[in-house]
Amino acid sequence: MKRIYNFSAGPATLPEEVLKQASEEMLNYKDSGMSVMEMSHRSKLYQAIIDEAEADLRKILNMPDNYKVLFVQGGATLQFAMIPMNLSKNKVYDFIHTGQWTKAARREAEIYGTVNVIASSEDKNFTYIPNLDNLSYSKDADYVYICENNTIFGTKYKKYPDVGNRILINDMSSCFLSEPIDVSKFGVIFAGAQKNVGPAGVAIVIVRDDLLENPTLPGTPTLMNYKVFAEKGSMHNTPPTYTIYICGLVFKWIIANGGLEGIQKRNEKKAALLYDYLDKSKMFKGTVEKDSRSLMNVCFKTDSEELDKLFVEEAKKVGLENLKGHRSVGGMRASIYNAMPLAGVEALVKFMAEFESKHL
Amino acid sequence: MKRIYNFSAGPATLPEEVLKQASEEMLNYKDSGMSVMEMSHRSKLYQAIIDEAEADLRKILNMPDNYKVLFVQGGATLQFAMIPMNLSKNKVYDFIHTGQWTKAARREAEIYGTVNVIASSEDKNFTYIPNLDNLSYSKDADYVYICENNTIFGTKYKKYPDVGNRILINDMSSCFLSEPIDVSKFGVIFAGAQKNVGPAGVAIVIVRDDLLENPTLPGTPTLMNYKVFAEKGSMHNTPPTYTIYICGLVFKWIIANGGLEGIQKRNEKKAALLYDYLDKSKMFKGTVEKDSRSLMNVCFKTDSEELDKLFVEEAKKVGLENLKGHRSVGGMRASIYNAMPLAGVEALVKFMAEFESKHL
Repeated sequence: MKRIYNFSAGPATLPEEVLKQASEEMLNYKDSGMSVMEMSHRSKLYQAIIDEAEADLRKILNMPDNYKVLFVQGGATLQFAMIPMNLSKNKVYDFIHTGQWTKAARREAEIYGTVNVIASSEDKNFTYIPNLDNLSYSKDADYVYICENNTIFGTKYKKYPDVGNRILINDMSSCFLSEPIDVSKFGVIFAGAQKNVGPAGVAIVIVRDDLLENPTLPGTPTLMNYKVFAEKGSMHNTPPTYTIYICGLVFKWIIANGGLEGIQKRNEKKAALLYDYLDKSKMFKGTVEKDSRSLMNVCFKTDSEELDKLFVEEAKKVGLENLKGHRSVGGMRASIYNAMPLAGVEALVKFMAEFESKHL
Repeated sequence: MKRIYNFSAGPATLPEEVLKQASEEMLNYKDSGMSVMEMSHRSKLYQAIIDEAEADLRKILNMPDNYKVLFVQGGATLQFAMIPMNLSKNKVYDFIHTGQWTKAARREAEIYGTVNVIASSEDKNFTYIPNLDNLSYSKDADYVYICENNTIFGTKYKKYPDVGNRILINDMSSCFLSEPIDVSKFGVIFAGAQKNVGPAGVAIVIVRDDLLENPTLPGTPTLMNYKVFAEKGSMHNTPPTYTIYICGLVFKWIIANGGLEGIQKRNEKKAALLYDYLDKSKMFKGTVEKDSRSLMNVCFKTDSEELDKLFVEEAKKVGLENLKGHRSVGGMRASIYNAMPLAGVEALVKFMAEFESKHL
């Protein structure tokens, strides 16, 4: 059966083993005579699925007990509003601005309060992560907000800002579960599923439980209240049951592949292969400063827009798809999330070398 | 392969043909080399899927051009907040109160304004639809709100209130696409997918386009603004792509089964079989007044809670599952949505007759 190497930034490639299992279980999950899609979310059978997904995620992240896991609809974008709705005291929010997603999050936060941009890499079209030393935090900021991996620009934090006792919020959408992290550094971690976790339609939100006691802003819908999700086990209403089931299969795939340590090694090997080639190439150049390079989204270009276009077209013909860069960067972007096999990156590098020798 | 008859109220049984197709296409959709789960929502391939789903839905409902179709996350429950957030002028809302879901919608609307209950069937535990003649609408009401089919209590409107020029809002979650309707009677129709349409994780919202010009309430998140969904083709952010794909397959199944006229005939035949049996039975009684009976959710009980319990247990043993009634009604509930085949209802009625002859 034909399968391509899909370098899409998200929704993105999923582990073939997961898709196979989903396909096999589609009409009859574990001899229940039902698809997971058809199960009451109030059934014991489904409760076991969501409980196991959460337990596996906690294990994978070595998550401290004082954090809650919420499965929330609306993607990362709804979190841009839920965070200020749930965590406001003074309605002042400190942002480190690193690209389109912090811009969108900032706009949304400004519906509810005042955003202070305490660092930014906008001056160089977001090709680096700003210096994190000596940041001037606002005295009354409710939280400090970062986006750890910037999907569009291909940058990633290599360390976190030292926020002291302040609450650090991390949009990890495009690097979630790509390497081990210390959950205890954060007030809230969130991630849209459609990069490393599963199909679009759910965000994983990890919240330190003391933050659930903060009163929500007036006018907050019930379904945007973190405490409601925590108290109801993400089942105040019907959750996206099938989407969560697929996430659960991906969590098991991560465990079977050595957990986050194993996944990190895989990811570092894949990224090194591609970046090493870029550093040697006379035709292709990485667009990001070396110390800010993402393990997940590798952005590069040639000197010529025509060559970029030709490259994307020719690559598609040999089953290397979705390599076009975002319009705000141009060039190419190879998203090499957890589920992209090493063989996919090897095929890409081989094709780049051939293209280079032909067109240089 | 074992498949049960699943009478769950939702998430609920789906057409076997749809599940088979989804299973077959899971690793390679139309020779793309990708699962639908893995496709960029910005790709031509995915755009064709969502466009076709919308076009098929418009065809099925014979939808006037001045209505927009929105695919929104958060289920019907998020609509309970989105409706007042989008449609408020005077912040006064008229409700016809027919059960738990109008109660939940009312509570949510009260976050934003004043609810006037202009009719209710609470006096008899919601076993009927209130008389709709001579309703006293509030002079300044922004809209009149109904829930057409009450999943828990098994009631359904047989006609609509005559609201004149007022805006009528209809929560059709559990009867959507079960029979033809005149969309033009409504300002907004909405339905959680997980009854007649697809997996949980998306609500279908149908909005008359002049209503999109009403300013949203201050503090409305971008992802709760109907106009944003309408202008962006439900893609302000990544939509629940796979869930929408399954909905699209169900729409095609409806068309292949004679459209809503064909589906209605099927549904009436199924419901008649069950209600006729209930009307003749000496053991089982329908719990709803005859002129308010739902085609989708059939509630019934015996005179004994022990017998009810035994019935549910014994039925499960022969592959008739999820027949337990909601705790606020007790007894049994058979949800016989579009995808429940006639053979399933025949098997249920046969089993009821056997149970009756054994235990009466």
